[in-house]
Amino acid sequence: MMSANHCLGVGIVICLCAAAASGATGQQAPPKPAAAQAAPDRNPTRALATKAFDAFTQGLGTGNWQAFFDLMSDDFTFTFPTGKYLGTHAGKATAMEFFGYVSKVYPEGLKVTLDKVTVDGSTAIFEFRDEGTLVLPSGRQPYKNRVAVSMDFKDGKLVAYREYFGSDGKSY
Amino acid sequence: MMSANHCLGVGIVICLCAAAASGATGQQAPPKPAAAQAAPDRNPTRALATKAFDAFTQGLGTGNWQAFFDLMSDDFTFTFPTGKYLGTHAGKATAMEFFGYVSKVYPEGLKVTLDKVTVDGSTAIFEFRDEGTLVLPSGRQPYKNRVAVSMDFKDGKLVAYREYFGSDGKSY
Repeated sequence: MMSANHCLGVGIVICLCAAAASGATGQQAPPKPAAAQAAPDRNPTRALATKAFDAFTQGLGTGNWQAFFDLMSDDFTFTFPTGKYLGTHAGKATAMEFFGYVSKVYPEGLKVTLDKVTVDGSTAIFEFRDEGTLVLPSGRQPYKNRVAVSMDFKDGKLVAYREYFGSDGKSY
Repeated sequence: MMSANHCLGVGIVICLCAAAASGATGQQAPPKPAAAQAAPDRNPTRALATKAFDAFTQGLGTGNWQAFFDLMSDDFTFTFPTGKYLGTHAGKATAMEFFGYVSKVYPEGLKVTLDKVTVDGSTAIFEFRDEGTLVLPSGRQPYKNRVAVSMDFKDGKLVAYREYFGSDGKSY
């Protein structure tokens, strides 16, 4: 019966930026060869990831998914681990239906605690915990889970979303 | 009853390296300022991640976990989504017990298909599919899942492992 995750609108994104942190001294020494020179992290995926996670948590918290839908490509795919949306589904229309369903079963939203963001190339993976109340015709039940969501970006759009569960829906 | 994942010894690691791929031309023009200069990815986590995933898949495939255990720090923690090892557990000794248990319930190993490796800072996340046979006293059953494993490294050692399930143990 545990079928989906939501979040309240907590959109704090921690950027791990090894390249930028490991050598920017500001001194005026001659430029080093490229191979030895630390460069700030310029991966545009970081900014997109922040935007996407903000929109995602907004949708989960409020039921207003417009900002998240606006980021999706038309051929967006999502992969979900359980329930009626188990598996991989193609097309933005199906995704809109899915995220609408999520807001239906968690109408009060979930509280999200973001633990880690891992960005590499065109992919960003968010590890977070969430909790709230699953509301079904059969009744209400507390919900608590660990989740990892992997997002792929292309040409400024979100093209794929893969969700993974790290706990049992009842505990962290 | 689905409690753990194994893999056969397939240890191919794809390194996504945006910085290295986006501008190394080899020409002799004067060095650009650091901010504009593409640098090869020097994150040592990539090499460690390859080594760890190779050792992990070797353990899953053969039951010989020594190489994987050798990479663990003494205060290694692992987090597992279900079954008797649900939750987060601290200490290398408990981890050794856990991975031994994994080899007990999947004695024939699992076939692994690695889909994506995402490396950032000191973390590497592996998204893969695996399949094989779960063997319990009650009988044998086919096993198939999507998995994400997030590994944190520190001082050349593996310090944390978090496993997430992306499917239901019966399908991809």
